[in-house]
Amino acid sequence: MDYATLATPPVCVADFCLIPIGTPTASVSNEVAAVQRLMKASGMSYSMHSAGTTVEGPWDDVMRLIGQAHTLVHQIGVLRIQSDIRIGTRTDKKQHFSEKVSKVESILAADGSADQKVIVSDPEPDGKERIAKVGEETNSLTEQGL
Amino acid sequence: MDYATLATPPVCVADFCLIPIGTPTASVSNEVAAVQRLMKASGMSYSMHSAGTTVEGPWDDVMRLIGQAHTLVHQIGVLRIQSDIRIGTRTDKKQHFSEKVSKVESILAADGSADQKVIVSDPEPDGKERIAKVGEETNSLTEQGL
Amino acid sequence: MDYATLATPPVCVADFCLIPIGTPTASVSNEVAAVQRLMKASGMSYSMHSAGTTVEGPWDDVMRLIGQAHTLVHQIGVLRIQSDIRIGTRTDKKQHFSEKVSKVESILAADGSADQKVIVSDPEPDGKERIAKVGEETNSLTEQGL
Amino acid sequence: MDYATLATPPVCVADFCLIPIGTPTASVSNEVAAVQRLMKASGMSYSMHSAGTTVEGPWDDVMRLIGQAHTLVHQIGVLRIQSDIRIGTRTDKKQHFSEKVSKVESILAADGSADQKVIVSDPEPDGKERIAKVGEETNSLTEQGL
Repeated sequence: MDYATLATPPVCVADFCLIPIGTPTASVSNEVAAVQRLMKASGMSYSMHSAGTTVEGPWDDVMRLIGQAHTLVHQIGVLRIQSDIRIGTRTDKKQHFSEKVSKVESILAADGSADQKVIVSDPEPDGKERIAKVGEETNSLTEQGL
Repeated sequence: MDYATLATPPVCVADFCLIPIGTPTASVSNEVAAVQRLMKASGMSYSMHSAGTTVEGPWDDVMRLIGQAHTLVHQIGVLRIQSDIRIGTRTDKKQHFSEKVSKVESILAADGSADQKVIVSDPEPDGKERIAKVGEETNSLTEQGL
Repeated sequence: MDYATLATPPVCVADFCLIPIGTPTASVSNEVAAVQRLMKASGMSYSMHSAGTTVEGPWDDVMRLIGQAHTLVHQIGVLRIQSDIRIGTRTDKKQHFSEKVSKVESILAADGSADQKVIVSDPEPDGKERIAKVGEETNSLTEQGL
Repeated sequence: MDYATLATPPVCVADFCLIPIGTPTASVSNEVAAVQRLMKASGMSYSMHSAGTTVEGPWDDVMRLIGQAHTLVHQIGVLRIQSDIRIGTRTDKKQHFSEKVSKVESILAADGSADQKVIVSDPEPDGKERIAKVGEETNSLTEQGL
């Protein structure tokens, strides 16, 4: 088989968690912020969550962007970086990553599992609890209070 | 050294992505929904996003819960399951996973990077764009429109 | 459904990559060595490779061991640790992790893909190339020279 | 900052685990074998282990190769594929991935932890135990018998 002609997937959804190694402190928020500025500048569709950043687009563009994130963090002085990337491709349908959450929420809503108030367990700066309706927006994170 | 006396961490933040293997279709939303019902019933603090589910608690409880998720999905007929788990522990501070996002967003807000409207690139069913303010809630996913 | 009665899987295969964060240097080999001593002391079936350590056993035992690894590395002064765990369970058959490699190698051997000498691309300290036969032992890593 | 000029890292070590979703059976060894043929044809330095395949080279080449692996598996009929990729880059030194294992083994050897016979816990088809010397080759997987 002629592998040289194999193209990379035209679209993929990648979720990556970039970890700086050998940094003076255990905090990595400055590095993560630098990466978020890069993501924003890329113009690609992405979203940040507490365990990583999800980005969607052509395989080559997505992987170049994550590679640039490594270079960027190296440029600000980090000698070693390890990332974990979950990447998915499918040929049966085109589905934006945000639709995955809404599809599951619709299944849960059908049996009432998502029909509830959500109380975030950590109080807001103003001390008031935040109350949100599960599934009130496509990308909402649902969190079950303790 | 006496390893037998080593305890597991009192708290951890885990983000897992559970993948059923050998299913008749490429859709896994029913399995994910079943896992979400388990998460809700656990009473633990968790959140679902498009690339996985983040859960926080004592190491043993979190790992037992993810193990139960495997058993649950096996019970509904899936012969093989592979999960990717990103798990973090730290001894320098107690930080709820939702605080990670807000800390990064505060850094971005300081240089204006997060001071913007967010246009979700995929239109809602009603054809209207959804508009949200970045960082308007602790756990919001920020998404940059194309 | 009564989730409380859900057991964790009786057996699983986990591959974990433990990353110390906020260490003075970019080298993590001392931490990895400490974890390997723990693995050895556990008496469980495991193997180390360049990208992680694979361990097999009951879900609870495997997860406790990885949790102990976090505690151990915290005890030697690392404030923050992030691990990536790939964990698989299956109900259709019992397969030791080393059998996965041999099964694939047998498929490759059938079409001659594995019938070759392997030249390691980096010279040994003594400057001589190391030559090994692919598949000469069940767990051998196969490496294709440049 | 001009992100457009950011290059991707000149070298990286990636370890990926490719999972076909929606396949008729729970066995994925044929898909893994197809990917191994691609790896061999690439001429890049790589190694397969029970939990994935490690490959080293320029970021763009490595990511293109993994993307081609997705396309290849889609071509043989798999509608959906999810991969987990652990990828590391460092600017402080050039280290081939096989050196990571030998460095840890040398630390273990110094305190005798690696000076032992290895008994593989699962008997060979002929019922005889397989005995190997830990660290007898740079890339050997070390496995501790039960």
